[in-house]
Parts: sequence; C-alpha cells; structure tokens
Amino acid sequence: MKFVTGASKQLTVWQDLAGGGLNNRPVTVHGAVHLLRDMGGVAFLTLRLARGTVQCVCPPEVLPEDLCEECCVELSGVPRAEPRAPGGVEIAAEGVTVLSRPAAPMPVPLSKRALGLHLDTELPLRPAVLRHERERAVFKIQEGLARAFREFLTGERFTEIHTPKIVHAGAEGGSNIFRLDYFGKKAYLAQSPQFYKQTMVGVYERVFEIGPVFRAEKHATPRHLNEYTGLDFEMGYLDSFYDVIEMETGYLCCAMALLEKEYSRELALLGAELPGVDKIPCLRFDDAKRLAAEKYGRPIRDPYDLEPEEELNIGRYAREEYGSDFVFVTHYPSKKRPFYAMDDPDDRKYTLSFDLLFRGMEVTTGGQRVHEYAAQVAKMEDRGMDPAEFESYLMIHRHGMPPHGGLGIGLERLTMQLCGLDNIRCASLFPRDRTRMEP
Amino acid sequence: MKFVTGASKQLTVWQDLAGGGLNNRPVTVHGAVHLLRDMGGVAFLTLRLARGTVQCVCPPEVLPEDLCEECCVELSGVPRAEPRAPGGVEIAAEGVTVLSRPAAPMPVPLSKRALGLHLDTELPLRPAVLRHERERAVFKIQEGLARAFREFLTGERFTEIHTPKIVHAGAEGGSNIFRLDYFGKKAYLAQSPQFYKQTMVGVYERVFEIGPVFRAEKHATPRHLNEYTGLDFEMGYLDSFYDVIEMETGYLCCAMALLEKEYSRELALLGAELPGVDKIPCLRFDDAKRLAAEKYGRPIRDPYDLEPEEELNIGRYAREEYGSDFVFVTHYPSKKRPFYAMDDPDDRKYTLSFDLLFRGMEVTTGGQRVHEYAAQVAKMEDRGMDPAEFESYLMIHRHGMPPHGGLGIGLERLTMQLCGLDNIRCASLFPRDRTRMEP
Repeated sequence: MKFVTGASKQLTVWQDLAGGGLNNRPVTVHGAVHLLRDMGGVAFLTLRLARGTVQCVCPPEVLPEDLCEECCVELSGVPRAEPRAPGGVEIAAEGVTVLSRPAAPMPVPLSKRALGLHLDTELPLRPAVLRHERERAVFKIQEGLARAFREFLTGERFTEIHTPKIVHAGAEGGSNIFRLDYFGKKAYLAQSPQFYKQTMVGVYERVFEIGPVFRAEKHATPRHLNEYTGLDFEMGYLDSFYDVIEMETGYLCCAMALLEKEYSRELALLGAELPGVDKIPCLRFDDAKRLAAEKYGRPIRDPYDLEPEEELNIGRYAREEYGSDFVFVTHYPSKKRPFYAMDDPDDRKYTLSFDLLFRGMEVTTGGQRVHEYAAQVAKMEDRGMDPAEFESYLMIHRHGMPPHGGLGIGLERLTMQLCGLDNIRCASLFPRDRTRMEP
Repeated sequence: MKFVTGASKQLTVWQDLAGGGLNNRPVTVHGAVHLLRDMGGVAFLTLRLARGTVQCVCPPEVLPEDLCEECCVELSGVPRAEPRAPGGVEIAAEGVTVLSRPAAPMPVPLSKRALGLHLDTELPLRPAVLRHERERAVFKIQEGLARAFREFLTGERFTEIHTPKIVHAGAEGGSNIFRLDYFGKKAYLAQSPQFYKQTMVGVYERVFEIGPVFRAEKHATPRHLNEYTGLDFEMGYLDSFYDVIEMETGYLCCAMALLEKEYSRELALLGAELPGVDKIPCLRFDDAKRLAAEKYGRPIRDPYDLEPEEELNIGRYAREEYGSDFVFVTHYPSKKRPFYAMDDPDDRKYTLSFDLLFRGMEVTTGGQRVHEYAAQVAKMEDRGMDPAEFESYLMIHRHGMPPHGGLGIGLERLTMQLCGLDNIRCASLFPRDRTRMEP
C-alpha cells in the first residue's frame, strides 16, 4: 500500500547558485542545454534553469554522446567562483545524464541576446521563442504584476471571485462582442466582469477578479488584443471615485516595490525602468485635452474621446510638467461611457470616471457606478435600452447597493508599457488577434 | 492640481469588533441593514459587514425615518461587551446615516439561518441569495482554496501563467466543446489549458494557472457545470507521476492549514469539517474497482471507467480501511485517457495517470504526459488523429521537453465536497448549466 504525505523534493535553483552560496559543494541541477560549445578538450555547456542560466564546464569523459541543444539533462558537479562566467559562477561538471532529446534543432537561436525576428515570423514559433531569456523575463514581470494585485487587495480585505465568461448579455455595449451557440441559444463571451463584480459588492463589499476578457475588436493595432487578462476590482462605500483612484495608486506602489525586490534580474535584462508612483497627477478630461493641445500644437478633433496621439501627448505633458509616468484623466464625457457610469451631479455631460495613462497609453478604465434603481433605469431608458433585458443585473439596484465603483486594468498593456515593448502581442503568451488563434 | 499617493483609509471591520478589541471606544462602521427589529423604545439593528454581522442598539432619536432592511448605512457608536448578542459584542449606536435605500424589499429572508429554497427558485435570485451568511461562507472558503493553491505553488517556484480561452483545437477530444465564430473562422472554447501549460513547462519548468474551463456536457447532473474554474499546474523533470501526486498533497496540506487558520468562522457556520491530509492512500484503478466491488457487493459493469456509485464506494473504502477522506486512484486505462497521457511502460493498457477522489467524488485528474516527439506522433496516429492538425502543439515535443506531468483540479467540486453541498451549482457564484446562462 502506497501513501503520500506531500513531502517536497529540495531542488537546487538558479537563485541559490547565482549568489555563490553553493560554491565548492556538490550539487545536482536539471535543465535544458541552452548553448553547447565544444572547445576541443572541454565543452562549455550553458544550462537553462527554471530561472536564469548557468555555465558548466564538461571534461570530455562526462559529455554524453550526441548531446545537443535543447536536450534535457541532469547534471552533477561542483559550482565555483569564476569571474569570466556570466553571474560569476560556473559548475565543474562531474556527470551529465540525458533525460530527453529533441527530434529537431531549434528554429531560432535561443542563446542570442535578441532574436530580432519580425513579429509575423516570431508569433507562429511562440512555443520555441518563449524559451528565450528576454521572453521569459517579460512574463515573469507579468506574473509579478498580477501577484502584487492579489496580495495588495487581499491585504485591503477584498475577496477574490470567479465569475462566468459565458453570458447572456454584454456589459460594455457596442458590437465588439463574440457570440456563441449555447445549447441552441445565443450567448456571448464576457467583455468584462462588470455586472458580476458589482453584484458581489452587495455580498462582500470589496471584490476582485483576474480573468480573461473578450473583445471582438475588428481593428488591428499594436495596442489591441481580442482576448486579454483583466485585473478587475470593485469596492463599496465610496466617498467619491477618488477612493478608487487611491486604491489603484496603492496597488501600483505595491507592484513596483515587489518588482524591485523580486524581479530586478528580469528588469535589468530588459533594461526596463520602474516608474515613480508616489505622486500621480489627476487632470480633468477637458483640461488634459486642452493643455496637451496647447503645449504641443495639435488641434482637438474629437471633443468626446482621446485619440491615441492625444494620449501620448497627455502622457508627455505629465512627464514634463509633473515628472510622472502616470496620469489619471478624470471626468470623461457621459456620451463615451457605458450606461452604468455615474454622471457628475455638478455637470451631467461628464461622469465620475477616469482612465489611467501610463507612458502615454490607457491602461485602466474605472469610475463610480450608478447605485440607485430609479437612476439606473432612467439612464438606460435615456439611451434607448430596455431595462427588462437587464432584469437580473437590476436586481442589485432594486434590493439595495452602497455607493460603489471600481476599475479594470489590462494586464498586457501594463506589462507592455513597463517593459517598453512596442506591440501588445509581445506582452501576451499566445496572443489572439483578428488573424491569429494559434498557437 | 490634485495628486494621489495611494493612502488607504482605515476601516473598522468585523474581525476587530468581534474580538472585543474595540470595546468602549467610539467607532464608525458601514454596512447593510441585515435585520431590523423595533422593540418599542429601542430598535435592534443587525448590520451586515463585509464579513460577519454585528448587533447595534439604536435609541429612537438616532433611528432615521423609513430605515429598512438592505439600506446601506454608516453608523457611529460605542461597542461594548454584551453576552446575549451574537459574538458577545453590540454597538450602542449614536448616529446612523443612510447612504442608499433599496427600491423593493428582499425576495428572500436573508437573516434566517437557512433559506431552504428549491434550487430552481434560488438560482434566478442569486444576486440576492448570495448575501446570505451561508452563501458568503461558501465562497470565502472557495477563495481560501484558490489562495492556498497560488501561495503554495509560488513557494514551490511555479510561475503563474495566463493562456487563451479561444482556441483552434480542443485538448481533451470528444464532442463536449463549445464552438464560436471568430471573425469568420471556426474556433472553440478551451476545455482545459493542457497544450499551453505543457508548452510553458518548456519555458519555466513549473507553471500554474487559475482560470475558466468550458465543457459542453449535455447531461444535467448534480456534479457537472458547463463552465468551471480550473486549478491547473504542470511540472517538468518528474522522476515519476507520483511527484505530481506529492505536489497535490502538499497543496492540500497547505490549503487545510490556511482554512483552519483564517476561515474557521466560515467552516463553523457551515458545519464543515476539514479532512485529514497527512497520509493519503494510493490505489491502482483495477485494485480499487475490485476491492470496492468485493466489499460492497456491487458488480463491475464498465472495466474502463468509474461510475459515480463506484467513486462513492471507493471513497467509502478509503474512509473505512485507511481513515482517509481522500484517495488517489492511479493507472487509469489508456482507452479512457487523452492522447497526451503517458502509457505505463510495464503494461500499455494502463497510463501513468490518476484521479483524486474526495469523499467519494473525483476532484482532480492528472498524470505524466508523453514528452517525446516520436512517441506522441505514434500515439496520435494509433488513435486515428492527424498530427498535422496539432502542429503548433507538437512543436514542443519536436524541440525537446523534459519528462513532465500535471493536473487539473475543479475548484467548485473541491468547494462542494469540503462544504458538504449536495449540488455543484451551490459551489459556483453564477452557475452555467444546460438551461442556465443568467444571471
């Protein structure tokens, strides 16, 4: 009879090796052969570990026959200080066991500093390309951003929720919604967890969700994906929508601190600089538009929305005038916000809402929501919507909701701007766009 | 000019009140009026906080006119020890401000100990019903289970990933897959993150994902949902598939410890008992089937799969013979496992795979995967599959993969069994079944 107890094997990992903490003591590591250079007498084998790489010196007698790149091996040996090796450590190999062999060589040179491929070449090769150190760094940073979101909000007593992605009605309106057949009925893929996270404010007061968001955007731009990861939260008992802004700023502080502490290797590898987050300016939509137009001499064309170039200019303005990589743009026109956005009681042409721009690109949309039943029904009717179609959503307003608001952050956009990537596809493991649903 | 700094407001929360730590000091709390009883002179107002409830005594002069249940209020007063109040504390209210009012009374009696509604009545009222203390407890426990998964695996150096849910091919085969139109092309909703998490083992060695999983199961049972939350992990450099089993056991130990420490209030409210996890038996599929059939006198009908009643009996067997609520059933027949499952080299009719049963119900499926290109292509061809259709998946085998394996846990099933619920719909905030995609 076999029983299991959950005992964990101790692994030797890159973090321990790189510090030199294991020098001169025998270790066993496993990884893929990242680079193999035969120097006649000895071979230099760069092993790719779960994180980082390590150089191993192999005398001929320990080198297995037919060893090649992307073989997975177990290697035993003794790490020692070696100033010429990357990281200052190399392993003097004493034994190498091949665990598996590839059937064909890599289609891309993984050990080169940069792959330099065109996106259309790179994306179909994603399973191979993602093994590159720069790609690995991007998605470690993405992990850190999501992790900080959860850790920060859990500390602020938010409850994590999981809400359905197959829905009977779109929350964000418009035509950018995917349809599917659900046992003979028409269903949609959720454009956001909006209705559900608001519902859960009536239950837990503060909630968050990290999950996929689907947008059937037809345009191909470097900043749109058809499926992305939403970092969403929603909170009750607001004094004003600035409470939401403060909460996001708290998250950003936490995220940058975590990245600095635990992901500095990846930041350095990408040459990514962490933005300051201690004092983020807030500009009203109309002011931001006007100030950027005046300063950079670009006339305002659409008074109700920000064009990408205007976002860039407002970002530049925040950088030059306030030294900030971030800027909150508040009070968006009602016309351009969804039916659940609360209008500003002082001027109903505007809403109590905001976007956050990061280095000139929108990475967050948020704001206060309508919480009273009569007000929500009236706003729907004003827009020609039929409240009867939203009966289960309106149940929350009917039976009582606190003043509340929240936001959605696009994880890939945040990653893209932080890592200085020029296309959002590079910030998604397996991007979905108009022409791409594979790999 | 307004700047934000991420400063957080200090809230008075139930956890602080319940311990008596704030007794005799003025506090301000906010919440919904859960129950209001007018006793002539004074009124007893039970306030529902983000977590827990607190009794407040309101003299007539502080009671707002038209106060009713589900009003959201801010209440100031002084907490004091009161042995007759639930939790041993009540607040002597000095001021009550109404922040919002409902438009209609609750359709269900939220303050009753149990709602006792039929599921078909309850599910359409979910936005109201979820405010009940028992419902809140279920999904706090669910939060704890997901949180432990991430915290444990992060500690074990797994990397969190986000993979697409719109896919070009199903990973699990069969007809239970949702189709959608993707810009004029046929696409599917992911039945699991299987291909992607395996791909990412080639990148980070150990990865996990928490995300939605879609199954177009046509049958209506108390244990199936059409959309559920998968806790998935995948790990490289296995010595055997028991490494996966040990890792899951480690997770369960961590989860139960976290629930005991931080969710004891919710466990008590539901009368849920934590299972022991220190020593979980492993039985081979054929042995488990035979032993349970012999002990409980139920003949074996399908030699290749477990019927729900057999799962119940194997669970009962593990309980009676080994005192365990969990049992790993290993070596499932190849016939019933997907093409990526690794066959047992000692007997190719069986696979190096397992299910975990918890109190007689499958909550996990896992195992070792085929990692060599030739072996994977051969297994596909044996099954009449066309390897060309899986080209981007096979790229990982072609270019080298370590021996690896992993598992998928159904979060709702785990929650259901832990909380002793009799229908999986009660373990999903907004369940999706054949007839239900709203709310």
